[in-house]
Amino acid sequence: MQTVDLLLAPRWLVPIEPSGVVLDDHALVVDAGRIVAVLPRAEAQMRYAPRQTVELPTHALMPGLVNLHTHAAMSLLRGIADDLPLMEWLQNHIWPAEGAHLSLPFCEDGVRLAFAEMIRSGTTCVNDMYMFPEATVNVAREAGLRATVGLVVFDFPTPWGAGPDEYIHKGLELHDQLRGEPLIRTIFAPHAPYTVSDAPLRKIREYANELGIGIHMHVHETAHEVETGAGGKRPWTRLRELELLGPDFIAVHMTQLTDDEIAEAAQYGVHIAHCPESNLKLASGFCPVGKLQRAGVNVGIGTDGASSNNDLDMLGELRTAALLAKAVASDAGALSAPAALHAATLAGARALNLDSEIGSLVVGKSADCIAVDLSAAATQPIYNVLSQLVYAASRDQISDVFVAGKPLLRDGALTTLDVDAAIARAGEWRNKIRPGATA
Amino acid sequence: MQTVDLLLAPRWLVPIEPSGVVLDDHALVVDAGRIVAVLPRAEAQMRYAPRQTVELPTHALMPGLVNLHTHAAMSLLRGIADDLPLMEWLQNHIWPAEGAHLSLPFCEDGVRLAFAEMIRSGTTCVNDMYMFPEATVNVAREAGLRATVGLVVFDFPTPWGAGPDEYIHKGLELHDQLRGEPLIRTIFAPHAPYTVSDAPLRKIREYANELGIGIHMHVHETAHEVETGAGGKRPWTRLRELELLGPDFIAVHMTQLTDDEIAEAAQYGVHIAHCPESNLKLASGFCPVGKLQRAGVNVGIGTDGASSNNDLDMLGELRTAALLAKAVASDAGALSAPAALHAATLAGARALNLDSEIGSLVVGKSADCIAVDLSAAATQPIYNVLSQLVYAASRDQISDVFVAGKPLLRDGALTTLDVDAAIARAGEWRNKIRPGATA
Repeated sequence: MQTVDLLLAPRWLVPIEPSGVVLDDHALVVDAGRIVAVLPRAEAQMRYAPRQTVELPTHALMPGLVNLHTHAAMSLLRGIADDLPLMEWLQNHIWPAEGAHLSLPFCEDGVRLAFAEMIRSGTTCVNDMYMFPEATVNVAREAGLRATVGLVVFDFPTPWGAGPDEYIHKGLELHDQLRGEPLIRTIFAPHAPYTVSDAPLRKIREYANELGIGIHMHVHETAHEVETGAGGKRPWTRLRELELLGPDFIAVHMTQLTDDEIAEAAQYGVHIAHCPESNLKLASGFCPVGKLQRAGVNVGIGTDGASSNNDLDMLGELRTAALLAKAVASDAGALSAPAALHAATLAGARALNLDSEIGSLVVGKSADCIAVDLSAAATQPIYNVLSQLVYAASRDQISDVFVAGKPLLRDGALTTLDVDAAIARAGEWRNKIRPGATA
Repeated sequence: MQTVDLLLAPRWLVPIEPSGVVLDDHALVVDAGRIVAVLPRAEAQMRYAPRQTVELPTHALMPGLVNLHTHAAMSLLRGIADDLPLMEWLQNHIWPAEGAHLSLPFCEDGVRLAFAEMIRSGTTCVNDMYMFPEATVNVAREAGLRATVGLVVFDFPTPWGAGPDEYIHKGLELHDQLRGEPLIRTIFAPHAPYTVSDAPLRKIREYANELGIGIHMHVHETAHEVETGAGGKRPWTRLRELELLGPDFIAVHMTQLTDDEIAEAAQYGVHIAHCPESNLKLASGFCPVGKLQRAGVNVGIGTDGASSNNDLDMLGELRTAALLAKAVASDAGALSAPAALHAATLAGARALNLDSEIGSLVVGKSADCIAVDLSAAATQPIYNVLSQLVYAASRDQISDVFVAGKPLLRDGALTTLDVDAAIARAGEWRNKIRPGATA
């Protein structure tokens, strides 16, 4: 008998690798934060002496969800301006509010509210892009959440920096400070083709190559962006010419794509962060997920920020992605239930170059996993567990969340974050940002 | 002081009429199942002596959701066949399973599971279409749910009837039996243009006129249906020529519409039951909600059956409708938060000719209402209550549901239905329908 830290005993185990598999009455055995075995429950009990056993008798256990694109701190602006198109929303509402209020405390409070919501809805790894990235680092440490933190770059000043040189400098400083950090990595995050000019993009490509840091950027979010590209070029073409495209590049949104661009995305090994609810809400357009996947492009899923969604619920987002892909492709088989689960886990991990560490429940990987209780009326009867997870389950059915074997949610209660305090701080910011208003 | 049955005291009251209004700290006063006052809480306490007061300190109170199209009993087939297009799904999976198992007990058990889920997610009125409509009647009575029950008609036999004449005869019998029933009405439900021929449709129109019963029918669900219309006609044209179109006609789906057909829908006063998640999942297409509303057509929202969605969550459905309408219309203002709430309540009531009775919280109407607790991290902070309800809240935040002043859900627990028994019966059916399979 081998003594181990933890044994998770779900009714069903969904490893993601191999695809489409559902294991009945199997256990996940965890030691020192890593998966040491996936095997039938009965066999596990003969071979392992766990310090703790978590019984999950009506649950499916699966890898934690990877939110491949968000702006966590924007949770404090949730609902401040809705039913508006992207540029009006950004220029007349979001950027003015940010300009007036953005600070390290704002971002820490916003990230804390966001991470409380994200953990509650099954996210174990987040790829964040926002000013004051040290806020995301601080709260990710506090929460125990795995995070890739964007080193954001704009041409123009924000409360976080004066311009591209300072943004890059501060980003590299933060990157240096995080060496040896077990759960937190960095990624360059030039905001978008329309907010970052050629010179800083060239510099980012150089540093990315030198330091092995990836790049995370909004690309082809709207038709307007494509029509008004600098130098009359489609932004994708410009990024290709600047040599930004490659297997370390995550292109977010990508609603406007020619067939040639889809082929190029595959050829360059670019990853797509698909944010269906934000694309719908801002009327940005439809990312051709079916075509991209058929071309061999790796597509992960993100919620975008809470002010253009307006939630940070990856289980809801992967459902929207699975439903929408079918109508967009005119193919009811597009982004099937197993494919949607893969997109929200292993594909996101791969985009972040973390697929050797997370994204599936296989021996040797970190124990980043979630349990979904399927006993509710809405997920009964059960012919097909994967179908229930994708098309019927909702965020409240997520009972338990682990990152590197550590519980962040147990029986629906957050273990590392004080949600009441986070909500109280959010209310204070709301009163500061829009004083006097009631609802 | 007037003695009344019930006082509901929410933090916010969303009456739907007038549109866009949110009342702070108002009370809803209920007596004998009807709304007798909507007024400031403080004033209500001076004027009314309620037998019961329900405190809803972090909640929004709004009209109950009207599910304008569903097949409730199909909850027992949830997840039996996914990621397939409409006709393959119907002909190779759903119809064979129905043919082998359909019966009054099957339907009662399926409707009970469905109504448990629907009440839990805020539905107070359902427009159902399925064989054995008496099952829906029986369980609606048991649940206390308001229902309009479809008198289904096909050309071909099913376990419920031999053909159109018998379907119509049985339907009229059921209609007769329901005279004087307070919460249950009937509606003709010829299944679709491709399953009902001209003669029974003419008969249905005659009876509808004679008896004042409405008509509820799938129309233009897919391009395939339109391309293969009988006599080379578009089904809409055929229905118009058969004089089916009118203000008592609910056309379900309507994903394939010319601008002329949209103008005709407005001209005839036809109501649309928009089922966005089913249309996406079956890759049927996109209902042009923005165009329809601009033309003045009344658009309500339905979940469709659980086997093509796969949930019966009207709060999720109205969110999907609100998000999708924007990208389909290329207009981020399409189906705004207030418009989406209106579609899921008063517009549905109007389509069912029940808008003098339900759909908004105004004096004289029945007290059909729901409370949504907005205190979760996912719905904080609160700049805009309507935005939180539409874009951020999820079904588990619905705490209380009332129909005609009677509680069907209190603090998240069903009061009229035994959900555990319903789930157990669903499991038995599953084992009968697909014996041996595990997941």
